[in-house]
Order: sequence, then C-alpha cells, then structure tokens
Amino acid sequence: MKYIVQKFGGTSLNTAELREQVAAKIIHAVKEGYHPVVVVSAMGRGGESYSTDSLLSLAYEVSREIPGRESDLLMSCGEVISGVVLAATIRGKGFPAVFLTGSQAGIITDDNFNDARIRRVDPQIILEHSRLGKIVVVAGFQGVTEKGEITTLGRGGSDTTAAALGVALEAVCVDIYTDVEGIMTADPGIVNNARLLETITYNEICQLAHEGVKVIHPRSVEIAMQKNIPLRVRSTSSDAPGTLVTNDSQVYKGAIDITRDRIVTGITQKTGITQLKINMPETNASAWQVRIFKGLALAGISVDFINASPEAVVFTVKDEMAQKAVEILENLGMQPVKRPGCVKVAAIGAGMTGVPGVMAGIVDALTRENVAVLQSADSYTTIWVLVQQEDMVKAISALHQQFLD
Amino acid sequence: MKYIVQKFGGTSLNTAELREQVAAKIIHAVKEGYHPVVVVSAMGRGGESYSTDSLLSLAYEVSREIPGRESDLLMSCGEVISGVVLAATIRGKGFPAVFLTGSQAGIITDDNFNDARIRRVDPQIILEHSRLGKIVVVAGFQGVTEKGEITTLGRGGSDTTAAALGVALEAVCVDIYTDVEGIMTADPGIVNNARLLETITYNEICQLAHEGVKVIHPRSVEIAMQKNIPLRVRSTSSDAPGTLVTNDSQVYKGAIDITRDRIVTGITQKTGITQLKINMPETNASAWQVRIFKGLALAGISVDFINASPEAVVFTVKDEMAQKAVEILENLGMQPVKRPGCVKVAAIGAGMTGVPGVMAGIVDALTRENVAVLQSADSYTTIWVLVQQEDMVKAISALHQQFLD
Repeated sequence: MKYIVQKFGGTSLNTAELREQVAAKIIHAVKEGYHPVVVVSAMGRGGESYSTDSLLSLAYEVSREIPGRESDLLMSCGEVISGVVLAATIRGKGFPAVFLTGSQAGIITDDNFNDARIRRVDPQIILEHSRLGKIVVVAGFQGVTEKGEITTLGRGGSDTTAAALGVALEAVCVDIYTDVEGIMTADPGIVNNARLLETITYNEICQLAHEGVKVIHPRSVEIAMQKNIPLRVRSTSSDAPGTLVTNDSQVYKGAIDITRDRIVTGITQKTGITQLKINMPETNASAWQVRIFKGLALAGISVDFINASPEAVVFTVKDEMAQKAVEILENLGMQPVKRPGCVKVAAIGAGMTGVPGVMAGIVDALTRENVAVLQSADSYTTIWVLVQQEDMVKAISALHQQFLD
Repeated sequence: MKYIVQKFGGTSLNTAELREQVAAKIIHAVKEGYHPVVVVSAMGRGGESYSTDSLLSLAYEVSREIPGRESDLLMSCGEVISGVVLAATIRGKGFPAVFLTGSQAGIITDDNFNDARIRRVDPQIILEHSRLGKIVVVAGFQGVTEKGEITTLGRGGSDTTAAALGVALEAVCVDIYTDVEGIMTADPGIVNNARLLETITYNEICQLAHEGVKVIHPRSVEIAMQKNIPLRVRSTSSDAPGTLVTNDSQVYKGAIDITRDRIVTGITQKTGITQLKINMPETNASAWQVRIFKGLALAGISVDFINASPEAVVFTVKDEMAQKAVEILENLGMQPVKRPGCVKVAAIGAGMTGVPGVMAGIVDALTRENVAVLQSADSYTTIWVLVQQEDMVKAISALHQQFLD
C-alpha cells in the first residue's frame, strides 16, 4: 500500500470553504492511488474559537492552577474538533473517512506533559481502517503515554505527528500544507526576486528553520530524516509541487557523489536582536567571562552569536531580553554597550563547503550597498552577519543578488 | 541477498600478515551469511612501494608533464595491485574471490581527472559474481567515465567508493576498517579519559571530520546518508563493534522523536593555525574588508573563523599560509597583528540545540584551567574556541571533563 501523509495547519481549516479545499487535496491523493493519512492542527486564530489558545484561556478563567495532565487533555480537544469536522467534510463528498485521536492513532509519548516526545508509533488501527479503504484523519500535536494519559507535543506540534506517522507507515511522502508555496531563497516580502526552491536537503532546511524560517519545525525534519522519508512543503491554495526536502542525490544533478550548482541555497534573517558588548579588564578576563555566561544562563537568557576574546565579550540576545541582560551585567559590576534593533542574517548552503571566496562575495555585496557588518561568523555550511535593522532589506537583497539571482 | 561492504585502507594491506588479518575479517562476514564486497586502497606508505605517491614519483622522474588521464591511469594501478594480492590471499584460504577494477565494478564518474565525482554505480558485474558465491574485491579510489577513460576520485578516495557501493547494493552496512577502534569523544593522545562512541549521527561525524577528525571523509558520509546506509568505523586489528554512524532514532534512546542524553558528542581540534587581526580605520571599514577578503581569495588562501566588525577584522589561516597572507595584507597598506601557533577547538553535539548554559559550561571549564579564549563562535550544534597551542591539552581535557567524563 502506498501511504501519503498530508498535514494541514489550523489556518487551512478555519472556514467551511477552506475545509472544502483541504478535502479536495485529500480526495485528489486517493484518485492518484495513495492511501492518505491526514494530520490536522487545531483551527487557527481568527477561526471559530476552538484554537488551543482559546481553549486554554477558557480554563484559566476558572483557575491558573490546571495540572499538566488536565491542560493537555483540554488542549487536545482543539485537534479533535478540527479533525471530526474535516472527516465529516470528506464523507460529505462521498468518500469514507474516519477520525482518530493521537492515542487511537498509536502515537505513544513520554509523560512530559505540554512538551511530550514521541517514543514510538503503533499504527495498527490506522492500517486497519486504511485497508478498508477509509481516509484516516488523525489529530496532530497529541499522543498518549504507555499508562494511557493524554499528552501534547509542544514545539513542532502537528508537523512532528505527521513526520512520525510518515516514518511509521514508510510513507511515499509527507506533505506539509501551508499558506506559502514552499521554501523560498529569501523572504519574498524583502527580496522581489526571491525564488521557490524545488529541492533542499534535510540539513539545509533544519538550518534555515533554526535561523528564522518558520515554515517547518526542525524537530519534524529530524524525525523524517531518520528513514529518509521525503517531506514536501506546499500550498493549500494551489496545485504547485512546492519544495521537496530530501537527501537523495538523484535530485541534485543526478550524481551519487553530489555536486551542487548553488553555493548558497537560502538567505534568512532573525530580527529584533540586541548586540551586547562588554570590554574586558586588563587582568582576569576569564573570570569575568564565567560570571557573564553563568549569570545569563541562570536567568534563563539565551545568548547567541558569541565572540569571546581577551579584549571583549560580544554576543546577542532577543530585544525583549536585553534590559534584563543589561541589569544582570550591571549587577556584576560591568558596563555593557548595548546596540538594539539588529538583524542576524544567515546565508546557508551545503554547496559552500570548500569553495573559496564566499566571504569575499558576502563582504563585497554588502559593501556595494553600504551595509556595515557589525559582527560575523562562519561554519562550513553557513555564514552569519549581524547588521542594523535599517540595513536589513539592502543586506538581504544584496546577498540574494550576489548568490541567487 | 544481504550485502556488506568492507573497506580496508592501505596500511591494513602492507604486509602478508596484515592481509591474512583482513582476509579473516572477510571470511568471517561470509560465515555470518553476508555477501561481502570488499573495497581496497593502495598499499600505504612504508609498504611495498606500490602506494599512489610512489607510483606518481616514478612517472615524475621521467617528466613533470603527465596528462591528467595518464596520471590517473598510473595512480589507479595502486589499488589494482593491492586488490589482486588480496583476492589471491582470500583464494589461498579456500574461498572463491574475484578482483574488479573500479571500471569493471561499474563506478561511473565525471571526467574531472584527479578529483572525479561518482555519477552513478552500475553494479551488474558485482551482482553476477556475488550470486555465484564469490567474494568481490573492488579497487577503491577509481572509476571510469562514460567514454571509458579511467579516473581517480581525489579527496575521500576509497571511502567514497565504499559508500557509493553501499548505496548501490543497498548494503546492510558499510564497514570502514581503520587503525583506530572507532570514533572517540576526543583524541586519546590528548585526553586520557577519551571514550569510544557507540553511535553518532551522519551530521555529527561530518562536522567532526570538517573540524579535524581524520577517520572518515565527509564526502563518503554524505553519500551513505542519501539512502541511510549505516557506516561502521572499526578496527582491523580487533573484533570490537566500533562506532555506528546512523540517523536511526532507535539507537538514540529508542524514541522516534529523539531525546539525546549527551549535550556534546565529541571534541576535536585543528592545530597549526594563525590568527590575524587587522584594525579598521575610522572610515571606510567596509572597503578595507572587501580588499582583505578579495585579496586573500585571489591568492587562494582559505580563511576561517572570520569575525568582521567595524573595529577590526579577525580571522584564521593555516600557519603555513600566514606569511603569504601577511604579505598580501601589507601590500594593501594594512598592518595585520599575527598570532601563530593557535588551535581551534570544537565541541560538537546535536544535543546542545536549545540547551541553556552550554557556553557558560565551556567558559567555566576553560577558566578553571586558566585557558584564555582568544576567539569564539557558535552554531546550534557546535561551539568553537581558539586557544593557544600550549593551552590545547588543558583546554580539551577540561571540556571533556565538563561534558563527557
């Protein structure tokens, strides 16, 4: 049996019209000879108020002290509602469909309520329904412990469910339906010439996701990668093929020993970043460094883009954490220099490994546009630069022109 | 048929005694029910003078102007010699064996002599021999173009052949036999407590290889990863299982949604590095930066660990390139400050993603040992620090103690 997993986010399920569109995608897969297993999120914000957030606020009106297992039970209702409604929509179009909760679908998790991890998938019930020719709709974002407690998956949510089912069913593909056409070379709101990527590797999309691309959660990519199940990021509102996520060299110039045409696959940005710089004293720089990083870690402040040297420690935090970070540092007797409103731009590509002059190209492009590089770093597949907010559009456009136009 | 690919490096094939050991490994695989396909390198240095280098110097004694296709033909003899000798050794032990050149084994490459890439593998002849119960010995490091020209694979060499055959044969495993027990948490020559890793992901081993671990070439890892063919790095001189390279979550705490016990998987170092620092002028910093990186790229000097800021550009080059880099920069009217004899230490682990306080732990460990951090950088799976050569052992030991003891 050829299984395909189709995952639809909350905003695709908000209205009857959208659900018709989703049902059409599913029925199309049936007509192409696949057995679809459909994963749904809760209806999104602006929808019919059955979103996870609105369910939680309902309970919080009563008490702020809801135990983890009960808030998870409550939150799991969001996907039950959207799944039951979607299954009914499909049946209304004359196709047999059945809805399963995460528990019924065999999504077995640990008991870390609110952020459970999937331990294994027992797809027996899915298989039974599927063999009878039924379209199976599964509630995303939820599972069950070995002891029968309902859990929710936290970060990655329904994408994680979809990827795990893809692995368990050895699906031909896991289609992640979104409101964008796929993965772009850059944010089309910033770069006019941004193009849709036909293909991307698991690693590249993980890195893009870590550096700010919101389309898919890295956790689900990591799951799919375990068995090389191809992911496809595509649009609910079009028939375009979207972006295929795979390691298969056959799609990369067709050679087993991969040669990549592109040095840079994509450019992404994280906005709202504050750079902090602390000049080190003549002596005892190391002790200061320990105090800085321990102090910030204890306060739960994530630091990034760290450059520690005997002269200075430079790093970035999110804008909203900057004041707290400054206070901690000042309490330690330090005088941090704060540069708020920065943007971390990352150029990512598995093809840059071993290619000379990539940094020269980046600095050249940015200089042509008079963009000052506040800080930089590089790994063998990524170059990061920190720029000022007002330079962001110029910076990303210049890099896109240099490597991707 | 259950295929297993076994790759033996040149130093494992140098003497008759070592070849007996190798033959025993192969025959053991047959007795376990596998069809072994054996990939060999040329006999190593210190061997019987049929190494790739000695073959080339033979030709260079006649002329320095050997055309690429002919130097490749010549170099390909190294593996033919070791392969024929090994096949004879196996037959001497009463097992049928056949030797195939890269061309006969169906390794089809592009025509980039000296550094060809494998386009596809046509394993027909391997399969025919294997089906007849023969042990197939294949010359590594070589292939043939569509037009019949013999090529050599350059970087990655025989590991690349082994991985490509593993993919083509859908092998149960590709065993890379080396003179070490497997992948270690750190260099055991530096850290007494260095441990053998039972498992590691493809990404982690790629990163370790890029950061200085010599055991396996990243190119072969990338090939095996395409079809999730497990690699095993193990020792020719023992029966220990070595280190398994895989993405399969079943080996990582058994959960489909991976939870990793370890924050840091391994620590590695690149020695012989010079840090160069160029202070920027008050104005026109960008123009200087362009001149620096273009000048170095044009001269073919690889730069790494780049931190460009409006105040200074800091980066590293290999010690042996430092003088040339300094000359280029001085010719541009700059006065680089040179710090030779540095070591780039990398702590690598897929488990550090999203874990707070990793940098605090690193700085803390290094400070306890009075190690000054000259420069640092971080990605979501790696933290790099630059230290002085005399601090290297202390630095790596301290990090190992912090994260891996």
